[in-house]
Amino acid sequence: MKTGRLEAFSDGVLAIVITIMVLEMKAPEDTTLQGLLTVAPVFISYLLSFIYLGIYWNNHHHLMQVTQKVNGKILWANLHLLFWLSLIPFVTSWVGEHGHYYEALPIAVYGFVLLMSAIAYFILERMLITYHDDNYALSKLCTNGTKEYASLGIYLLAVPLSYVNTWVSIGLYVVVALIWLMPDRKLEELMSEIEEH
Amino acid sequence: MKTGRLEAFSDGVLAIVITIMVLEMKAPEDTTLQGLLTVAPVFISYLLSFIYLGIYWNNHHHLMQVTQKVNGKILWANLHLLFWLSLIPFVTSWVGEHGHYYEALPIAVYGFVLLMSAIAYFILERMLITYHDDNYALSKLCTNGTKEYASLGIYLLAVPLSYVNTWVSIGLYVVVALIWLMPDRKLEELMSEIEEH
Amino acid sequence: MKTGRLEAFSDGVLAIVITIMVLEMKAPEDTTLQGLLTVAPVFISYLLSFIYLGIYWNNHHHLMQVTQKVNGKILWANLHLLFWLSLIPFVTSWVGEHGHYYEALPIAVYGFVLLMSAIAYFILERMLITYHDDNYALSKLCTNGTKEYASLGIYLLAVPLSYVNTWVSIGLYVVVALIWLMPDRKLEELMSEIEEH
Amino acid sequence: MKTGRLEAFSDGVLAIVITIMVLEMKAPEDTTLQGLLTVAPVFISYLLSFIYLGIYWNNHHHLMQVTQKVNGKILWANLHLLFWLSLIPFVTSWVGEHGHYYEALPIAVYGFVLLMSAIAYFILERMLITYHDDNYALSKLCTNGTKEYASLGIYLLAVPLSYVNTWVSIGLYVVVALIWLMPDRKLEELMSEIEEH
Repeated sequence: MKTGRLEAFSDGVLAIVITIMVLEMKAPEDTTLQGLLTVAPVFISYLLSFIYLGIYWNNHHHLMQVTQKVNGKILWANLHLLFWLSLIPFVTSWVGEHGHYYEALPIAVYGFVLLMSAIAYFILERMLITYHDDNYALSKLCTNGTKEYASLGIYLLAVPLSYVNTWVSIGLYVVVALIWLMPDRKLEELMSEIEEH
Repeated sequence: MKTGRLEAFSDGVLAIVITIMVLEMKAPEDTTLQGLLTVAPVFISYLLSFIYLGIYWNNHHHLMQVTQKVNGKILWANLHLLFWLSLIPFVTSWVGEHGHYYEALPIAVYGFVLLMSAIAYFILERMLITYHDDNYALSKLCTNGTKEYASLGIYLLAVPLSYVNTWVSIGLYVVVALIWLMPDRKLEELMSEIEEH
Repeated sequence: MKTGRLEAFSDGVLAIVITIMVLEMKAPEDTTLQGLLTVAPVFISYLLSFIYLGIYWNNHHHLMQVTQKVNGKILWANLHLLFWLSLIPFVTSWVGEHGHYYEALPIAVYGFVLLMSAIAYFILERMLITYHDDNYALSKLCTNGTKEYASLGIYLLAVPLSYVNTWVSIGLYVVVALIWLMPDRKLEELMSEIEEH
Repeated sequence: MKTGRLEAFSDGVLAIVITIMVLEMKAPEDTTLQGLLTVAPVFISYLLSFIYLGIYWNNHHHLMQVTQKVNGKILWANLHLLFWLSLIPFVTSWVGEHGHYYEALPIAVYGFVLLMSAIAYFILERMLITYHDDNYALSKLCTNGTKEYASLGIYLLAVPLSYVNTWVSIGLYVVVALIWLMPDRKLEELMSEIEEH
């Protein structure tokens, strides 16, 4: 099987997940600045989740570019990833509605969904490597995995820490996002090397 | 007519159907574990429906891979399938909102929608076979139909049984999902045989 | 410009329009048959609108198949069509929420949106013909327009008639849907003639 | 990287953004003309936002047509644009729910989101030019930028002016839409010149 329809379906789901989060941002009753500021917590959690989903879309894009074929198991590994990502709007709105961010559980559950998404992505990568036994680019891209292990570690730390101080956990989620947002010279080199290949 | 746009449209509808179900999972008022657990029934019915829709997407994907052309009737058979699948979010939220699962009607209606979806898929397959009179792969894929007949039979059983015991029906829906989730060596062989063909 | 992205965007919008209508079908509080029957009017108007949007998608599909290129004006003519079609969920839920169907205005506005969609489709066709001055298939497809004129005429009749008797108007909307649903031997011949061309 | 998936994802997000705005148009309780007219302000702001999103889709379409390749930074510049556009349904419903349009803040925030979208589009263009150092068509298309500078200037004027008179700001937003809606002979010439190239 080619990857075309898997990409199209994933793009569809991610586009919807990223967009329905704004449905949680209800227009304030009030037309004052205070009224607008009541939306701020939901907006900030929307912004963070938007960035996270953007990172996943970007990485998925890179991954599929070096993938030639998929099988039934890989379709399910991809659906498993989409399942956890589809829960992001739910946890985003739960965090956002409790605007002082000092309640542990929503912050912990947010981190848990991020953790499970990262694990699901990891599983998808491993399955792709197993299926493409001689794909140089794919194994290169996936073993370039310092960021991935760091992210998993940080999530594992951040989830329980939300019971100590929610701001520490939030800070750690932002750190993971920044790790992935920073331009990655090694990746760019790898991608252009792949193209020349 | 080529299958490209039929696939794109089906992917779009399925991506939306699979995603809008999370809109039914309202963030709990409460930030306690009890608060979170109030969402559990909706979450569990979401999980089952997500798996069902994933199975349909996977099967649709396999089916379209061995299809070369479609006509007006087939477009409508496909829309008929999408119609029943589009009702899944509605029945999912009806089941989920009655969290003890002991009320027969929502469970029966859930099964009815699954039954009608299975019938619609069956009709689509028959129409594709009729239209491709000499397509070896397609007829091979569709006559490999033990699972389909089993599913239809189980649904027909599960719908009335929900009036006896809802848990029996739910168990049967899970059984059908498992039948389709289990790796299918015959299908994998068939798909690789088709590719070599 | 090629038609690829216009098709993808139209498919996206139509897939969403067709699917968000189910969001209006709220799961009933009650788990009795009476509870379920309260959803019936919304369900019936959903069914009719689903069929209408299916017809538009089908016709759009046929139209784009014989189109080679588009320009800026045609992109806008297509957006104009999508605008009117995007209002269908709104009028569908307005009709559906007034479940006895004896109130004239919702029925009239429903017909008005159908009328404007039909006009928008007509404009799109004319613009495509003007832009493809020597496209045999396209002019053949679009001058095959008895159905289109009939539909426009019926809508023009049905909108004011809703003030006389809403059931007459509803009947006329169903008639238009049936006109387009019936297998069209002339169209099938034309499409296969086009393919051979 | 090719532009295919960037286009597909952008089409998906734009299709959803353009469509979920209608979810804000709740079917009126009433079935009288007065009931329908209560929806008018939301409808009018929907219409304006639909046109704006249509303009962005059209321009994005033109831009991607002359683009051959993208890199990681450009994917993010595109996501940045989609982020601001995804806020349009929120501001549209805020403006629409305050139906007399005489309250400054919603009108100002609406303009601010339009301004940020325009800036994001501008950044995307600059990045594409930098990445395609010898792309004649792309630089031609983007330096054709009188409209862009005019739009940015008008937004910068309209946002503070909403505190003087909201109607002036609304008028200015309409003016920007008209600037982009008017057929652009220079652009059409450029696009056909590009095709011949």
